[in-house]
Amino acid sequence: MRTRPLKVALLGCGVVGSEVARIMTTHADDLAARIGAPVELVGVAVRRPSKVREGIDPALITTDATALVQRGDIDVVVEVIGGIEPARTLITTAFENGASVVSANKALLAEDGAALHAAAEKYGRDLYYEAAVAGAIPLVRPLRESLAGDKVNRVLGIVNGTTNFILDKMDTSGAGYSEALDEATALGYAEADPTADVEGFDAAAKAAILAGIAFHTRVKIGDVHREGITEVTAADIASARRMGCTVKLLAICERAADGRSVTARVHPAMIPLSHPLASVREAYNAVFVEAEAAGQLMFYGPGAGGSPTASAVLGDLVAVCRNKLGEATGPGESAYTRLPVSPMGEVVTRYHISLDVADKPGVLAQVATVFAEQGVSIDTVRQQGKDGEASLVVVTHRAPDAALSGTVEALRKLDTVRGVASIMRVEGE
Amino acid sequence: MRTRPLKVALLGCGVVGSEVARIMTTHADDLAARIGAPVELVGVAVRRPSKVREGIDPALITTDATALVQRGDIDVVVEVIGGIEPARTLITTAFENGASVVSANKALLAEDGAALHAAAEKYGRDLYYEAAVAGAIPLVRPLRESLAGDKVNRVLGIVNGTTNFILDKMDTSGAGYSEALDEATALGYAEADPTADVEGFDAAAKAAILAGIAFHTRVKIGDVHREGITEVTAADIASARRMGCTVKLLAICERAADGRSVTARVHPAMIPLSHPLASVREAYNAVFVEAEAAGQLMFYGPGAGGSPTASAVLGDLVAVCRNKLGEATGPGESAYTRLPVSPMGEVVTRYHISLDVADKPGVLAQVATVFAEQGVSIDTVRQQGKDGEASLVVVTHRAPDAALSGTVEALRKLDTVRGVASIMRVEGE
Repeated sequence: MRTRPLKVALLGCGVVGSEVARIMTTHADDLAARIGAPVELVGVAVRRPSKVREGIDPALITTDATALVQRGDIDVVVEVIGGIEPARTLITTAFENGASVVSANKALLAEDGAALHAAAEKYGRDLYYEAAVAGAIPLVRPLRESLAGDKVNRVLGIVNGTTNFILDKMDTSGAGYSEALDEATALGYAEADPTADVEGFDAAAKAAILAGIAFHTRVKIGDVHREGITEVTAADIASARRMGCTVKLLAICERAADGRSVTARVHPAMIPLSHPLASVREAYNAVFVEAEAAGQLMFYGPGAGGSPTASAVLGDLVAVCRNKLGEATGPGESAYTRLPVSPMGEVVTRYHISLDVADKPGVLAQVATVFAEQGVSIDTVRQQGKDGEASLVVVTHRAPDAALSGTVEALRKLDTVRGVASIMRVEGE
Repeated sequence: MRTRPLKVALLGCGVVGSEVARIMTTHADDLAARIGAPVELVGVAVRRPSKVREGIDPALITTDATALVQRGDIDVVVEVIGGIEPARTLITTAFENGASVVSANKALLAEDGAALHAAAEKYGRDLYYEAAVAGAIPLVRPLRESLAGDKVNRVLGIVNGTTNFILDKMDTSGAGYSEALDEATALGYAEADPTADVEGFDAAAKAAILAGIAFHTRVKIGDVHREGITEVTAADIASARRMGCTVKLLAICERAADGRSVTARVHPAMIPLSHPLASVREAYNAVFVEAEAAGQLMFYGPGAGGSPTASAVLGDLVAVCRNKLGEATGPGESAYTRLPVSPMGEVVTRYHISLDVADKPGVLAQVATVFAEQGVSIDTVRQQGKDGEASLVVVTHRAPDAALSGTVEALRKLDTVRGVASIMRVEGE
């Protein structure tokens, strides 16, 4: 084993960074044995240097992240700051100055992954980011490497723990959205401002990264159709139950049937209780992958949290350090297919539509005519009437999303339709 | 991209080999793009050259596997023959003659993995074997690489599809073992001689491989305690149901609480229906991994079959080819901990014991005394009596397996115990 240590700089020392530093110290011997050389933490860039950081030598703390990555003797930079800047500039500077990079930064990778990969390749460095998607669950490496000889056709995942906790709570307790959000906040599963989670931004970034890797193409967060869970009601969840389904916020990446384009989207959807994703409870994450030869795979585990994310970061750190020692680099970006990302309107899916209608003869005929005019075929209809009001629940067959939303628009214009109580897609069948 | 192809030799052209050859041809462009150079199949060693093999150029077929691996211009040898010899000699010869090896051979790796890894290291070649454990499910790579910065404490898996199919059938239909085995055979899930599957040999080989990787040590198939499913009865399954459990054949690899030894075992066990492994149906496989930082992870998918296994082989082929192009090798054997494997008697577990006893006062007191004398604490007891006969179902707290089996032995000697109807371990709680 080499005795001269590999030098690691840590950018950010919050929940994840402090855990990375802790494990690097407490498990130093194991890491050295697995890498073939010791690793030494030579600097930790933080915003608030006065904060007490247990287990970290205060002499390593600096507020000058730029100077740290410019030192020129750093082997690996671990970036756990998050956000676009200064992370992007720091990573690029690290590459220029001889370091490979391990990042947990989903927002940056989903926004500007191509440029980062290009910079890594230009300078002959590694860019690893297992921790950017679904925390500790090995997902980037299995998709990039284990399935490198296969053709992935579909990725369907629960990739946000906060929203899964909320929806699970609504499902098990019958609570409404606000009540379940309050509980998630109280238990620390939701942040004070939960927007990034509940509006699906976090999941959309992960969907972009997953779609890019799975289909060997480039997908940015802006290409991902996004709907959050704030409008999911207790009634939606109850409707799902009646259909033998549950409601999950899903990230769905699909290769079009003709293989010439891909789609990526995040939205709440009903999935059958028999689907392996339906039993993913609380804040757990799970990603279901369908590949041509491998068939159906699922990866399950904690999708966030300091320790799980640190586990993913350290797995990457070991790999990047081994590559450094062998004077090699791991697999870089694989975006050779250059498949275009189709808009949501072209996605083929099914709708579950709940309508409040007038309780009189002929309503169903009117409604059915609208579906037929839009070319959408109906799978099932359930009518319930009381006191002059009635509700009509329609589940469609598979159709392009544009035709389905066109149908809903036309339904809203009918005199006999008093309101569209809810619309939800049905997936995983 | 390099235009000179990497040369691949295929040893074995059965269900898996023919699928590997097919995908190498049909997906040649994708493989080339992902590797950075085309791959060319230059020889296929088979036992029966006269058999028609669709899609494979007959000029590539040879019965002389030794000459094929000795050619000296082969970059990667794919070994899908199985068994100890001639596979072992062929792999070693391949290393000597400049090739890296991708193998799906669990029996060989579980028997002699250390020697093969040593040979690979001596000659500076890669030995990859994702397909040896749980078919298409990425498991070797996640354990070897993704969790390389973490400490795995436990691996709990359903790694044999045949036995899972049989037990699932018994659970869902109430069928007995023989009836379920017949159905598995009729559907092609069990071989004509099902011994390797139903007696747990196949699972034990996988447990040895998993334990070695998870704990960075060496575990051979002979170190694995092994019990098959042939004695599991419909009554056992019904008992499990009453406890809110189901019966699975589990491969369990554990690090001892003091961290100084490991254990590996394969046996049927009751697990709670709430455990993620309980819902693994039919011939699917799933492996549950507990790591210090990552927490609980699960990997799920098809554990066997030509296409899924070929997917795993091709993922390894891409990685090994990339390494060849970069003049590097991937991670080799990591067995630095040299942890001893403790015998089954030291495993700490729980027993579910069903006794046929005389229906008279004092029996429970006698039985309870035996448990106390052996130092085994009882969790629950259920008594059922009719017509002078009675049954007593005892579930213990956790205790060393030696104490539990000592208890059963002492129980058998009691006059009031007419027979021990069944013993099963309880796991996953």
